[in-house]
Amino acid sequence: MTPSCELCAGPGGRLVHDDGQLRVIMVDEPDYPGFVRVVWNAHVREMTDLTAVERAHLMQTVFVVERAQREVLCPHKINVASLGNLTPHVHWHLVPRFEDDAHFPKPIWAEPVRGADADALKQRQALVPALTRAIATALGSADG
Amino acid sequence: MTPSCELCAGPGGRLVHDDGQLRVIMVDEPDYPGFVRVVWNAHVREMTDLTAVERAHLMQTVFVVERAQREVLCPHKINVASLGNLTPHVHWHLVPRFEDDAHFPKPIWAEPVRGADADALKQRQALVPALTRAIATALGSADG
Repeated sequence: MTPSCELCAGPGGRLVHDDGQLRVIMVDEPDYPGFVRVVWNAHVREMTDLTAVERAHLMQTVFVVERAQREVLCPHKINVASLGNLTPHVHWHLVPRFEDDAHFPKPIWAEPVRGADADALKQRQALVPALTRAIATALGSADG
Repeated sequence: MTPSCELCAGPGGRLVHDDGQLRVIMVDEPDYPGFVRVVWNAHVREMTDLTAVERAHLMQTVFVVERAQREVLCPHKINVASLGNLTPHVHWHLVPRFEDDAHFPKPIWAEPVRGADADALKQRQALVPALTRAIATALGSADG
């Protein structure tokens, strides 16, 4: 627990699953419906600060989320990243990408190249409850 | 093998290690000495298209590289990402980040926020041969 760390101070989004070691949260970023983060609960800086067993558990969870995103949203591509330059507390971004999204084909951290299509966003937003259930069910969460 | 894919057509950088299933390459990006990519050799789109055993092998390799980068370069943070919007062939970017680098604290795909310090880059560039050896040795490569 590091009080100045935003991922220690709060969940960091809408909680979908928490097994004590890690949590899965919905990011609710308007341009990216279905954007999920998987956060290691303890304040650990890098993946290689975890044990091999902890790393495997975290990555397995990341890929359960990826699979659910693919099944529910059918994106063009999934972007997966652990950055943490400002918040050095291990967390993975999982971003479903579509050819009509605001940054495609660039990473979401680049400048946007277009306004995202409002109808497409609305359709994807409507699938977020199903994605939430799919993740919770796949991870055996009580709220699944 | 997909002929139009640049990661099928060539190694994609200076080869450090290849075990048949995957390869490790030095990216030689001037602003980011020690930038490494781990590339799955077969043309596979997403991590969840691999088997669990293949995924574990790939991620273990990614984290061997991360550990070597930390030991040799002592970066502020490691950024790890699988994007592939333009090249949908599984590959991981591993980018050692420093507070004086061109994009810090932003991801390297954002607009640069400063010119990188030439002396710092030179010092880091001088460590790339040691990083190459450390990765090859850790992965048991013949050229280690």
